[in-house]
Amino acid sequence: MRVIVVGGVGTIGSAVVVALSVRHEVVVVGRKSGTVHVDLASPDSIRAMFQSVGKIDAVVSAAGQAKFGSLDELIDADYLFSFSNKLMGQANLVRIGQQFIADRGSFTLTSGVLSQEPIKGSASISMVNAGLEGFVRAAALELSRGMRVNVVSPPWVTETLVSRKMDPSQGMPAARVAQAYLASVEGSMTGQTLDPRSLPNT
Amino acid sequence: MRVIVVGGVGTIGSAVVVALSVRHEVVVVGRKSGTVHVDLASPDSIRAMFQSVGKIDAVVSAAGQAKFGSLDELIDADYLFSFSNKLMGQANLVRIGQQFIADRGSFTLTSGVLSQEPIKGSASISMVNAGLEGFVRAAALELSRGMRVNVVSPPWVTETLVSRKMDPSQGMPAARVAQAYLASVEGSMTGQTLDPRSLPNT
Repeated sequence: MRVIVVGGVGTIGSAVVVALSVRHEVVVVGRKSGTVHVDLASPDSIRAMFQSVGKIDAVVSAAGQAKFGSLDELIDADYLFSFSNKLMGQANLVRIGQQFIADRGSFTLTSGVLSQEPIKGSASISMVNAGLEGFVRAAALELSRGMRVNVVSPPWVTETLVSRKMDPSQGMPAARVAQAYLASVEGSMTGQTLDPRSLPNT
Repeated sequence: MRVIVVGGVGTIGSAVVVALSVRHEVVVVGRKSGTVHVDLASPDSIRAMFQSVGKIDAVVSAAGQAKFGSLDELIDADYLFSFSNKLMGQANLVRIGQQFIADRGSFTLTSGVLSQEPIKGSASISMVNAGLEGFVRAAALELSRGMRVNVVSPPWVTETLVSRKMDPSQGMPAARVAQAYLASVEGSMTGQTLDPRSLPNT
C-alpha cells in the first residue's frame, strides 16, 4: 500500500513510519518537516496535500495540537485552537481525504489516553480527544467504497516521559504503540477506538 | 436549593423543571423564552445571565444546538456551529458559572446517546456530545469549593419520537429522563456521564 503519515516526524509518527515501511510505501507529512507539508487547521492546506501526493491507500495521522492548561488558565481561544487543530484538523483528513483515497482505503487518527483518563489541566485536550472518537464512530457509518476510519488512543509514550524527565516506567515504547496503527491500516475494523494497551502480546 | 435550568422550556428541560420544583426553587432560562434569556454561543451572554439571576446552588443545562446531516452535507460552518453552541456553550456554563455558584454547587449538562451510539448523519452531534463528556471528566478534577459537574446522556425521548412521527416504543418518557438530572443535582457524584437507562427502577 501507499500510506501518508501526517505527523510522521513526531515521536509516535516516526515509529509508525518505521513499522509501516517494512511492507508499505510511506509518504511522510509534517507541519514544517517531512516530504510534504500540511497545516491541519486549514482545509485548503489539507486539500493541497492530497492533490500533491497523488493516489494513496491509507492515511495515518499522529498529528494535531491541543492546549494543555488549567480551567482557570485556558482562554476561549485555547479551546478554539484545540478544536480547529487536533479535532477538526484530523476530522478534515477524513472529510476531504475520502475524495482522494483509493477504494477500501483507511484513515487512522490519533486521540489519546486523556480522553478517558483525564488529569488536571487536560480539559481542552480531553474534550478534543473524546470528540474525535465520537466523530470516528459516526463517520465510519457513512464512508462508501469500503473505506474505513479508526482512531488510536495512545497511552503515555516512554520516549515522551523520558524527554520530559517524568517516570518512564508508566509509559509504553513508541514502537509498541505503532503496532496499533499497523493493525488499523492492515486490518478490517472500522469506527473503533484502539487502545495500544489492549493489543495482544506479540 | 436555587437551580437555574437552561433550556427549561424544551422537552427534557421542562420535565426537569417539574421534577426539581417539588423540592427546589427553579429559574427557567431559555434562548428566547423562560424567565431569563441566554445565547449559549456567547460567553458574554452567559456571564450576563449569571449576573442577573443572583445566587444559585445548581445549574442544569438541557440546551445547546448541534447540526444533523451527512458527512457530505455538513460544511465547516456546521461543525463550528455545533462546537460553539452545544459543546463550548455548555462547557462555558461551567467555566464562567464557577465564579458565581455557591459552595458545593453543581453543574449538570446534556450530551446524548449519539455520543456512543451514532447513526448516519450524526457525525457533528456525536463529536460534540462525546467532546462534552470528555470535558466533564477532566473539569471535575479541577473544580474547587466542593463544586461538581456531570453530564446526562439522554436516550431518544418518547415525546420527541411522537412529535417526529417515529416509533415511540424505543423512547424513554421525558419525566423518567429527568430523574437522571435530579440524581446529579441532589447526589454527590462528579465527573460522571449519566445514562438514564441505567437508573435504578423507582
